[in-house]
Amino acid sequence: MAASAQIGVTGLAVMGRNLARNFARNGYTVAVHNRTPARTRALVEEFGHEGAFVPAESLQDFVAALERPRRLLIMVKAGGPTDEVIGEFAPLLEAGDMIIDGGNAHFLDTRRREQGLRELGIHFVGSGVSGGEEGALHGPSIMPGGSAESYAVLGPMLEKISAHVDGDPCCTHIGTDGAGHFVKMVHNGIEYADMQLIAEAYQLLREVGGYAPAEIAEIFRRWNKGRLSSYLIEITAEVLAHTDADTGKPFVDIVQDAAEQKGTGRWTVQTALDLGSPVTAIAQATFARVASSRAQLRAAYRGLPGGTDQELRRHEAERFTEQVEQALYASKVIAYDQGWTMIRDGAAEYGWDIDLGAVARIWRGGCIIRAAFLDRIRAAHAADPGLASLLAEDTFAAELADAQVPWREVVAVAAHRGIPVPAFSASLAFYDTLRSAHLPAALIQGLRDFFGAHTYHRTDRPGSYHTHWAEPGRPETRTDQ
Amino acid sequence: MAASAQIGVTGLAVMGRNLARNFARNGYTVAVHNRTPARTRALVEEFGHEGAFVPAESLQDFVAALERPRRLLIMVKAGGPTDEVIGEFAPLLEAGDMIIDGGNAHFLDTRRREQGLRELGIHFVGSGVSGGEEGALHGPSIMPGGSAESYAVLGPMLEKISAHVDGDPCCTHIGTDGAGHFVKMVHNGIEYADMQLIAEAYQLLREVGGYAPAEIAEIFRRWNKGRLSSYLIEITAEVLAHTDADTGKPFVDIVQDAAEQKGTGRWTVQTALDLGSPVTAIAQATFARVASSRAQLRAAYRGLPGGTDQELRRHEAERFTEQVEQALYASKVIAYDQGWTMIRDGAAEYGWDIDLGAVARIWRGGCIIRAAFLDRIRAAHAADPGLASLLAEDTFAAELADAQVPWREVVAVAAHRGIPVPAFSASLAFYDTLRSAHLPAALIQGLRDFFGAHTYHRTDRPGSYHTHWAEPGRPETRTDQ
Repeated sequence: MAASAQIGVTGLAVMGRNLARNFARNGYTVAVHNRTPARTRALVEEFGHEGAFVPAESLQDFVAALERPRRLLIMVKAGGPTDEVIGEFAPLLEAGDMIIDGGNAHFLDTRRREQGLRELGIHFVGSGVSGGEEGALHGPSIMPGGSAESYAVLGPMLEKISAHVDGDPCCTHIGTDGAGHFVKMVHNGIEYADMQLIAEAYQLLREVGGYAPAEIAEIFRRWNKGRLSSYLIEITAEVLAHTDADTGKPFVDIVQDAAEQKGTGRWTVQTALDLGSPVTAIAQATFARVASSRAQLRAAYRGLPGGTDQELRRHEAERFTEQVEQALYASKVIAYDQGWTMIRDGAAEYGWDIDLGAVARIWRGGCIIRAAFLDRIRAAHAADPGLASLLAEDTFAAELADAQVPWREVVAVAAHRGIPVPAFSASLAFYDTLRSAHLPAALIQGLRDFFGAHTYHRTDRPGSYHTHWAEPGRPETRTDQ
Repeated sequence: MAASAQIGVTGLAVMGRNLARNFARNGYTVAVHNRTPARTRALVEEFGHEGAFVPAESLQDFVAALERPRRLLIMVKAGGPTDEVIGEFAPLLEAGDMIIDGGNAHFLDTRRREQGLRELGIHFVGSGVSGGEEGALHGPSIMPGGSAESYAVLGPMLEKISAHVDGDPCCTHIGTDGAGHFVKMVHNGIEYADMQLIAEAYQLLREVGGYAPAEIAEIFRRWNKGRLSSYLIEITAEVLAHTDADTGKPFVDIVQDAAEQKGTGRWTVQTALDLGSPVTAIAQATFARVASSRAQLRAAYRGLPGGTDQELRRHEAERFTEQVEQALYASKVIAYDQGWTMIRDGAAEYGWDIDLGAVARIWRGGCIIRAAFLDRIRAAHAADPGLASLLAEDTFAAELADAQVPWREVVAVAAHRGIPVPAFSASLAFYDTLRSAHLPAALIQGLRDFFGAHTYHRTDRPGSYHTHWAEPGRPETRTDQ
């Protein structure tokens, strides 16, 4: 078999198939392979007219079909299956070849795999790919890690098949080894937070505002024309406007209210805890999904009394809607700021040189959290590469200053009315925690010193101190000298 | 050397030393050993009059001093040092001997160690010990895991040195292998939540109520006579009443407001995410500590506008104080309920037969979260061993029903006034999430189906479904058949 393909894709489930088609549609010759050859044949049969495919039934034929250095994209399940496929192909490759993992691998697995393959001279490129099936076909957001050398070869190809915004590709070299999968993980964590915030806004409009789902769809359509403009807001309107054909009821009313998850939100929060990154909105969003699925607990709490119930007049509901928009936007800025803090922390921990503005740039298109305001995050980091937080940038700070009064009102109304807003309130608490001149953490340090002799720092001089709590009058002891 | 000691303690830092003294004071002959023999000699010199100590300088002498089956308590740093000490002693022991690890090991390490030693016939008993230095000396709460066979021998000794409440020892066999360290981890997670809730109550009384620390100390002393009666409330009053000798200022005002941690809160939340246990109050408490220590982020947010500022009149402040007590109590019940749910989940996951009422019983004394209301948790589980939640028990449900209006008021006031209450609001959101008949998780499921074809369940019939969002009019597809 002639080595004619610039890229090979193995694993032809929907994501792999659509990425292969995307490469072919962009003029690349694409070798395709699947464990079950029927799927390979079906792809060529159905979509062969879209471009140049080289179907291969054996691993050997597949590898032989690739130009050197070989570029091999694996699109199989994360975990064991990925290791298996790497183990099968590695012996057939040679130094300089590249394996790209486009699945949702844990970044620590990617680091391990990259190190193992590097010893064989093979480049391993863990690459986040966001955008679902449609994105894979028409242009996803792509977050490749791995060596700069591999990106020199792969970058132009990946950039070509990625989404484009204002002519810019939604793909950049994130950093070495696991950086790409790390950033994709945080993307998904932010996605959890964004969806939970949207869900809380919907619930408030419905239960406090008194609007029907179709009316809320209209509100979201209107919001989608403003600063909240984003894919998730857009499809929220679609979902809320949808009527169940069978029952004639709003679609959201026939869907079970038990949210599922595939694990990347959980990974984000677990990793954030190790890094010391306070991702409270992502954590609350992840736990909100968990709680919704705990049927037995829900049964135990069902029937406990809630807040006050009071119908709003139309003009009050309209005013409340504007307040919810402010609360949603402010909470969203906080959730994204927490995500960016985590990326900064991950980069410091793992030695990745991540361009924080470029992350915003490549999320403007293709991915699930694509949103107009990401261009402002990009611009903020471009203007100040050392930006410590979005809230240190004037326009975001001014928006939050504007939004904070209605945001507080919405959280207070939700508390009184008994509407759960875990992510709205966590975001507001985060805002108030970080802007506080004095936190009660001082009391916590005092308690820790009392029961565990864990010591504390003083505000007025350096050192660690322990108070002899059981011995009144005995001076505190400096413990670090 | 004659084998005369019923127990040996190696690792004579303050916790090990005090546990050794506790055994000796209770009539046991205690072999003592430390890597640096000076510490062993110092212990015997200073406290030899308290009981029968057998100092040993070598590992061999130490082991030779122990009656069979040998009982060897290791009190060294968690992680590598624990493995090292086990590796040194294991070859000197024989089948039937017992190694007890009284440190704060991760329960998964304990499972691994237990399995390794079991193959040698040695019992490994990972045992949570709570109560700090004072508890170790005068009676801690002890949470041993490991085999039932080892507990038959060790149990009476551990129960004897443990705290006692109404004649009951604060020690019970938690379950096999890592169950003891798992439960100790959750204990510490609850401790994080409890301290954060107390810190939020303090901040509210200070900044909204307008009280000085000494006045708040009095309020906590009063609360300590009621249903909140607990060690943490008691020492909060002590810490708040304390005046810094140097400056004459309230102690809490000279302590840096950056809370530190040693990792068990983080482990609890990470494990809860794996188990699917929604421990939102513990998570918010852990992240609140993290956030307080992020100086650069705090600098970026400092100066952002807060809420309204308004002085309360005396009678208003008194009324607010009563509301805060209600909010604190209700939030605390939620935090503890989350902890118990996690213990139930861990038991199911790892096959431990944990008596949930007994956990409450042995936490009534000795440990940091000892509290009067734990006796009611014990009683609730004793009355109904299948209790799904504290909120399914009538008296707790009635208390929360009473507390919910002031609780809502406190969260709303905090939002308006700009006081961060991450744990109060997370607890309230949890209460409102679980009692809700309809959650917006249904919308989240719709969004997930829209962008990722993740499917959803219907309320009116079984099965998994996918809507063809891009093809209006096409019927949904059932995907599980």
